[in-house]
Amino acid sequence: MQGCPLCSSPGGDVVWKDSRCRVVRVTDAEGVAFPGYCRVIWQAHVAEMTDLDPGSSRHLMNLVFAVETALRSLVAPDKINLAALGNQVPHLHWHVIPRWHDDSHFPAAIWASPQKSAAATRKAPTSEALSTAIGAALSEAEGGA
Amino acid sequence: MQGCPLCSSPGGDVVWKDSRCRVVRVTDAEGVAFPGYCRVIWQAHVAEMTDLDPGSSRHLMNLVFAVETALRSLVAPDKINLAALGNQVPHLHWHVIPRWHDDSHFPAAIWASPQKSAAATRKAPTSEALSTAIGAALSEAEGGA
Repeated sequence: MQGCPLCSSPGGDVVWKDSRCRVVRVTDAEGVAFPGYCRVIWQAHVAEMTDLDPGSSRHLMNLVFAVETALRSLVAPDKINLAALGNQVPHLHWHVIPRWHDDSHFPAAIWASPQKSAAATRKAPTSEALSTAIGAALSEAEGGA
Repeated sequence: MQGCPLCSSPGGDVVWKDSRCRVVRVTDAEGVAFPGYCRVIWQAHVAEMTDLDPGSSRHLMNLVFAVETALRSLVAPDKINLAALGNQVPHLHWHVIPRWHDDSHFPAAIWASPQKSAAATRKAPTSEALSTAIGAALSEAEGGA
């Protein structure tokens, strides 16, 4: 789709992909504030989950939950936030955001105003660690492959 | 769980339920601003999607997507927003929010500051219409039942 930033660029550091979806590590300021923050992007330009056929929808959610599993194992957040909004970029993508009680926005959503200033003291997982953990969790969910 | 508002009360006007989940229509100011706004709540007190077994996770997402299907059919929004945050109430629940280009917060998330004042001119679907449309969409997704 002409003019769509998720059609014309990866949208972050690609840590996992197949023909249907990719996972990118968020590399801007939000990736520093919420270390491990990933987005799971459907490769084709569709807007809504219910635009996908059931098998595609299941595969995408398996991958979203594999990223959640990887983040819980790698960075042990206090909470995981999942969201598919797409108001600004209506190309189907999921936010998988690790949250901590002491992060800048907790307990509000990361799209709200910050609650406090918070030093970014936690280290983000490496792309390699994310890639391995996501692949392992997805394989377990989908029985190999 | 003692002290959890989603364990001690329905959390809205219940329009659909089974033993594992319920769908409530949001009846406060947000339900007026985003007519049709529903929450899908897991009945048991668990925090994260990856705390569920795979069959439960699939059933919950089938229901979330059935609500999306129902809202697209009943209120024809410009976009659907899906989110499981749970920072304030860590009892697993999904927000299914119909969005319009002229709504108060578009294109920001509904948790951000409003972008503009917007008269609530659209009528919310009735609980009966929601109930019927959600049940039909879930039956189609899960092959009867």
